Amino acid sequence: MKPEKVPFYAGMEAGGTKFVCMVASGPEDVRAQTSFSTTKPEETLGRALAFFMAHEPFGAMGIGTFGPCNLNPDSPAYGRLSTSIKPGWKEANMLEPFRQVFDVPMGIDTDVNVAALGEYTWRAGQGTEVLLYLTVGTGIGGGGIINGRMMHGLFHPEMGHIRVPRFEGDRFPGICPYHGDCLQGLASGPAMEARWGKKAADLPIDHPSWRMEAYYLASAVNNYICTLSPNRIILGGGVMNQKHLFPLIREEAKRLLNGYIQLPLIMKKIEEYIVPPGLGDRAGVLGAIALARQKAEGR
Amino acid sequence: MKPEKVPFYAGMEAGGTKFVCMVASGPEDVRAQTSFSTTKPEETLGRALAFFMAHEPFGAMGIGTFGPCNLNPDSPAYGRLSTSIKPGWKEANMLEPFRQVFDVPMGIDTDVNVAALGEYTWRAGQGTEVLLYLTVGTGIGGGGIINGRMMHGLFHPEMGHIRVPRFEGDRFPGICPYHGDCLQGLASGPAMEARWGKKAADLPIDHPSWRMEAYYLASAVNNYICTLSPNRIILGGGVMNQKHLFPLIREEAKRLLNGYIQLPLIMKKIEEYIVPPGLGDRAGVLGAIALARQKAEGR
Repeated sequence: MKPEKVPFYAGMEAGGTKFVCMVASGPEDVRAQTSFSTTKPEETLGRALAFFMAHEPFGAMGIGTFGPCNLNPDSPAYGRLSTSIKPGWKEANMLEPFRQVFDVPMGIDTDVNVAALGEYTWRAGQGTEVLLYLTVGTGIGGGGIINGRMMHGLFHPEMGHIRVPRFEGDRFPGICPYHGDCLQGLASGPAMEARWGKKAADLPIDHPSWRMEAYYLASAVNNYICTLSPNRIILGGGVMNQKHLFPLIREEAKRLLNGYIQLPLIMKKIEEYIVPPGLGDRAGVLGAIALARQKAEGR
Repeated sequence: MKPEKVPFYAGMEAGGTKFVCMVASGPEDVRAQTSFSTTKPEETLGRALAFFMAHEPFGAMGIGTFGPCNLNPDSPAYGRLSTSIKPGWKEANMLEPFRQVFDVPMGIDTDVNVAALGEYTWRAGQGTEVLLYLTVGTGIGGGGIINGRMMHGLFHPEMGHIRVPRFEGDRFPGICPYHGDCLQGLASGPAMEARWGKKAADLPIDHPSWRMEAYYLASAVNNYICTLSPNRIILGGGVMNQKHLFPLIREEAKRLLNGYIQLPLIMKKIEEYIVPPGLGDRAGVLGAIALARQKAEGR
């Protein structure tokens, strides 16, 4: 008997800092992978295109992109960024260059929705009714899966742009070009660097920045819990590679909720509720593989 | 030919201030309706029970309740309130008294999820992928319909308990017994009364309270938009009977979003985006009728 043919898919995570491209059938079966810095649109999308052309064939393609991005397949602007905060990328189309070359089903969604899909398909989000995935890095973004479907609605979630109360005494104006002191403006990686004069990764564990950062992220988590009632919250992204943030955020979230929601998962097992991605930093690109698989199956 | 038999359903809106009970097939076909103040659990649930016994038969029953309430049909505490803010109602079971008497399919959900279902079924929420219903009255609560299903997840949304930044110069400590200055603690009807010494309905239109109230509600709306990306936002409840709040909230929400989400519905037609309930103050009880209909149809 011949072994059954395993379908391979193309996945691309288009981030504001770097792109990750992969051809795989799933987390345990990766045919090829690469990553490179996000520079100009033509150059960066060109490198991705070259990678995928070198690793054909694949049955479908999935893309998770930074945003805001037009996700309406019926729109002429499908796949196009709008008010991007990343210089040079405003109105770049993240999908079109690939559609012109590859004749396979394609899907595009936000980087965070796609990362949520990866975790929902293979790791920490399995079996959840409402899954929230938050990334804290160059920007702050949130996405999710509700009843098996990625969150869309009018556009798509832009969870990094909520407002939360100030940490006591904090007067930093914030760096979001649209909102100043929204969550992203106060607590993203670049906000930490602008506030403290050092990259987050270079701040010592006992630096006061971490308690403030935990407060802001826990305030956001508290608001998302009250708004979405997620079964699980996954925190990923570069800033969350500082693992000491997890216990700080969990304790602060419990303090903010203050016993209002009397569930063992929150009251006693919050370390199983607020978790890092099970796929680590591959959640995004493997989510893109999961999206490709959905498209191949006509979903 | 005999006319086709119209199925009638029982619907109950259990609010912190009053209960509304109805037997109807829909908004245009109400067989009976009553309402009365929320006093003690036995008394209030007893009055509701007597009303429905006097208006049998009906094919199913739906209940929309204040909360937090256990909505898990597999739990022995199904239908029971937990940490209610309403004195005397902690651990009251809102469903059990009816289950003991009526042998029909029954459903229970939060008052706001059910009101959202009413609008989704018959009025302002029709055809939406993500519908948000916020009530501002004795408390502040939010519910919603996503892809045709009420929002649940780990428990159910408790949107009134999010935190937002303070209105400039506001030092009022807030009245939420769990969180002090969460949204409900700062902007519910009783919070307005505690802050200004007058009921909201008695504050003149040009009183500074309204600009502050609009700020807090718009801050919440801004956070919900960024988190949920709703296709429409319905604002109901006693405080929202002050119709002059709508233009104030819309303008303030636009100011807070500050052009980040470039959609005509937000930028140019926000009066079609943030709207009062099409069913008026019957959204809750008619939503309970819609929930009953779902249960009768086995959904």
